[in-house]
Amino acid sequence: MDAIIITIGDELLIGQVIDTNSAWIGTELNDFGVQVVERISVGDDHEAIIHALEEAVAKSRIILLTGGLGPTKDDITKKAIADFFNDEMVFHNPTWERIQGLFKRWGRETTDDHKEQCYMPSKAELLNNKMGTAPGMLFRHKKSIIVSMPGVPYEMKYIMEHSVFPLIQSMNEGHEIYHRTIRTIGEGESRLAFKINDLVEALPDFIKVAFLPSLGQVRIRLTGRGSNVDQLKKSVDHHVEQISERLKEFVFGFDLETVEEVIGKLARARGVTIGLAESCTGGSISSRIVSVSGASEYYAGGIVSYSNEVKMSVLGVKETTLKDHGAVSEETVIEMALGARKVLGSDIAFSISGIAGPNGGTAEKPVGTVWMACTDGTQTQTYLLKAGKDREKNIIYSGTYGLNLIRKYIMAQ
Amino acid sequence: MDAIIITIGDELLIGQVIDTNSAWIGTELNDFGVQVVERISVGDDHEAIIHALEEAVAKSRIILLTGGLGPTKDDITKKAIADFFNDEMVFHNPTWERIQGLFKRWGRETTDDHKEQCYMPSKAELLNNKMGTAPGMLFRHKKSIIVSMPGVPYEMKYIMEHSVFPLIQSMNEGHEIYHRTIRTIGEGESRLAFKINDLVEALPDFIKVAFLPSLGQVRIRLTGRGSNVDQLKKSVDHHVEQISERLKEFVFGFDLETVEEVIGKLARARGVTIGLAESCTGGSISSRIVSVSGASEYYAGGIVSYSNEVKMSVLGVKETTLKDHGAVSEETVIEMALGARKVLGSDIAFSISGIAGPNGGTAEKPVGTVWMACTDGTQTQTYLLKAGKDREKNIIYSGTYGLNLIRKYIMAQ
Repeated sequence: MDAIIITIGDELLIGQVIDTNSAWIGTELNDFGVQVVERISVGDDHEAIIHALEEAVAKSRIILLTGGLGPTKDDITKKAIADFFNDEMVFHNPTWERIQGLFKRWGRETTDDHKEQCYMPSKAELLNNKMGTAPGMLFRHKKSIIVSMPGVPYEMKYIMEHSVFPLIQSMNEGHEIYHRTIRTIGEGESRLAFKINDLVEALPDFIKVAFLPSLGQVRIRLTGRGSNVDQLKKSVDHHVEQISERLKEFVFGFDLETVEEVIGKLARARGVTIGLAESCTGGSISSRIVSVSGASEYYAGGIVSYSNEVKMSVLGVKETTLKDHGAVSEETVIEMALGARKVLGSDIAFSISGIAGPNGGTAEKPVGTVWMACTDGTQTQTYLLKAGKDREKNIIYSGTYGLNLIRKYIMAQ
Repeated sequence: MDAIIITIGDELLIGQVIDTNSAWIGTELNDFGVQVVERISVGDDHEAIIHALEEAVAKSRIILLTGGLGPTKDDITKKAIADFFNDEMVFHNPTWERIQGLFKRWGRETTDDHKEQCYMPSKAELLNNKMGTAPGMLFRHKKSIIVSMPGVPYEMKYIMEHSVFPLIQSMNEGHEIYHRTIRTIGEGESRLAFKINDLVEALPDFIKVAFLPSLGQVRIRLTGRGSNVDQLKKSVDHHVEQISERLKEFVFGFDLETVEEVIGKLARARGVTIGLAESCTGGSISSRIVSVSGASEYYAGGIVSYSNEVKMSVLGVKETTLKDHGAVSEETVIEMALGARKVLGSDIAFSISGIAGPNGGTAEKPVGTVWMACTDGTQTQTYLLKAGKDREKNIIYSGTYGLNLIRKYIMAQ
């Protein structure tokens, strides 16, 4: 099955907002075996919306619209859809009552705009939107379905998850799809593919594999298609197990797990607290650990020792170490990690120091040279990463490798 | 003038890559007074590309294509364009010599794929791409121009800046455009608009104003259009001065300046070094300061005091302060800032502590309550921010307010 996404809003065309909705919808639909064949963005413009709808229904069975349903721009998208279907707008009382209830609870007054928002095309089947005031709208047109949703990401996602995916699954009945994703850090896409070449060759025809790389990470996704979901699960799970066993030194998790979450789970399970000492990454590893809600249970804190003075005064790195080996060296990161553990009072500590670029490289230590260490005060493990030339990428890339070192270190505890 | 953007690539449709190119192009073209009226994304599919081109030339004078020009997918986009123009592919020797030269310098071997990359539609005018191997291609079709560029952002930007913008400017001759942007932090869009309502009302017809909000920031852009560029500049600059004078407590910079860069300039000019103590933002303010290359000249480092133990042991916050007032309080952030300054040895220090959410809020201190402070050891300034309910947004939003407090504090030095 094919789908077309239509995103509506002047703010998308002038680049004020980056369209992340389309990417999310594309990924999720792909997981249901539905292929997005085209994406169209148009402004808040009656003719442009109608023209995009005409194009889309001629090509595809599933048309998803996002945007243009808020209380201020309401009219254009809904009226364009109504006109497309030769439909009329009717007042929908349950929605009005729902909005009044919400505003009462918030202690705020409704305006005429909110009442206006309750007019809907009469042919629309309304889809519950627990996250906002504007419901989604479903239209059935010949063999196609057309769904209009708000552009606010969490409202769109709520409607997709609660109404649209179940609908698409029912349209797809008898065509079961089962996905598993193996998540890896530490090895490139082509080398991973080389290592599991024989296992991929031996996959049955109904299982496809995809390599999805991002900075420092590669996701390996297996997709099984068939009519018997139990059989699919059994077979896909078996091959996932085989592949992840082969790649086990690189695998940190499965499906939607992030390395930050895996660190959290491991630290909780082992009862270990973590401290950080960051130089080149400047606090970005710390902010990634904190992105997990509840991190305070296992994260003590961190020192961003950007200057050599702070490396010495706060972390206790010796002046002679910095002089003899430099701030970017195995010797320095070891002393940074030991010092961070002591000053933060954590069970283990991780440290990182490198040349993020664009300046500061030498022949011996070019831009992208990054040293890191992990210690529990007794056993210290170090790692040398050779990253690229781009400052922004180096910070993310070395952060991902750093998080992976923390994960492995806790696992070995 | 209108433009249509066509982005090509399966990776866009399945959501593997988020399309940031379109947003960048939309913003830039808008600065030249060119309006993007539609964006279309199609896969690496011959028919789909031709169909999108047909649609686009019927609607618009400027058609910009990105993607599908790399050494592996080469054939599809270029052949589709050639077929659209009933053109044939010819081997372009200068490109081949250029690629061979690049690979020689890198000490790598070219492959047949790279030679294949040198076949171009004969009607293409090639556009220099200093950032990669595939040149851009320009086609003139009736009154339209069609430009095909690689999808790699910095390659696309290079071709746009060096070839496409000058071309668009020449198409637009006699229609001069002059932009200035005032950048603010600390006040919402509608309240800013209210404060300068009379100044906006008094703008001459040839100057338009746009409010461009993002998390915690609002850019106010003035666009002047006319035939005499000197006159435009004089008039726009005059009104920018008037508006920024009125809003001076919120204005941190102009045009492309970021608050992180402004802090760097001020700190260098004043000879001031900065230290941080972050709790709720978990290192993200630090990583934003470090995002400016050369930050080591004025940034000493930071303490991420995520646990109360670290607040006490590293920063010297008193146990009674935490007990009596809580970790999120004016008293605590003052002690955090004073402690950070001492331990990091910086001239000034900034501290922040808040409830990022989604949990941890109380009736008295709901999620989104954030205290911050800035000190030079003698004079301490504090600020209470009331942010929202979303953890991720709160971290960015309070970070922006924090950076603004640092900026103001250094300015007052």
